[in-house]
Amino acid sequence: MVQYAVQLDRTFAAVADPTRRGILERLGRGEASISDLAADFRMTLTGMKKHVQVLEGAGLVTTEKVGRVRHCRVGPRRLDDEVKWIGMYQEMLEGRLNRLGEFLKRSKGKPS
Amino acid sequence: MVQYAVQLDRTFAAVADPTRRGILERLGRGEASISDLAADFRMTLTGMKKHVQVLEGAGLVTTEKVGRVRHCRVGPRRLDDEVKWIGMYQEMLEGRLNRLGEFLKRSKGKPS
Repeated sequence: MVQYAVQLDRTFAAVADPTRRGILERLGRGEASISDLAADFRMTLTGMKKHVQVLEGAGLVTTEKVGRVRHCRVGPRRLDDEVKWIGMYQEMLEGRLNRLGEFLKRSKGKPS
Repeated sequence: MVQYAVQLDRTFAAVADPTRRGILERLGRGEASISDLAADFRMTLTGMKKHVQVLEGAGLVTTEKVGRVRHCRVGPRRLDDEVKWIGMYQEMLEGRLNRLGEFLKRSKGKPS
């Protein structure tokens, strides 16, 4: 349970940044090195490395060093737990709106 | 597009904290005041107010002040854009795995 919570913390924090979401979208089109990514996002190598580390820590990016170049690709984590958590929130919200609807219907039916 | 990105930043950051996810789960079972929530989560009123403000800023919690008590409930935002974004990530990941599978199949077919 704690492990599950830590994982949700990490993934949601990782994708809460527009540059990091952009990096994932870029890697979705094909592998890239840290230098490629830094150039694409007009960022220093150090800045890009930090973003990639956060994504790697969340399991959303895998890196592999070949010679002096570090290659990045998406994965391996699927975000099934995150989708499930958001689904639970949606259900709670729907439940509240249904209860509110029922309440309003009952209030309308009563003589004022 | 910028507005969409800002919204994703806010929601993902809001739910990247286990206490804030706990608050949403608690509010899913029924409305609560800030004091109720502070007591439930063994937190100071000031600490709880900050968490609720982050959730309210992301549209995940609505608060209403009645007399001296501030009531909180879930909503109004659905997380449809967030689900869509995660779905896009899942598709990218699947695409990469399919390409990898195809590559391995082709490599296996070749005489070594």
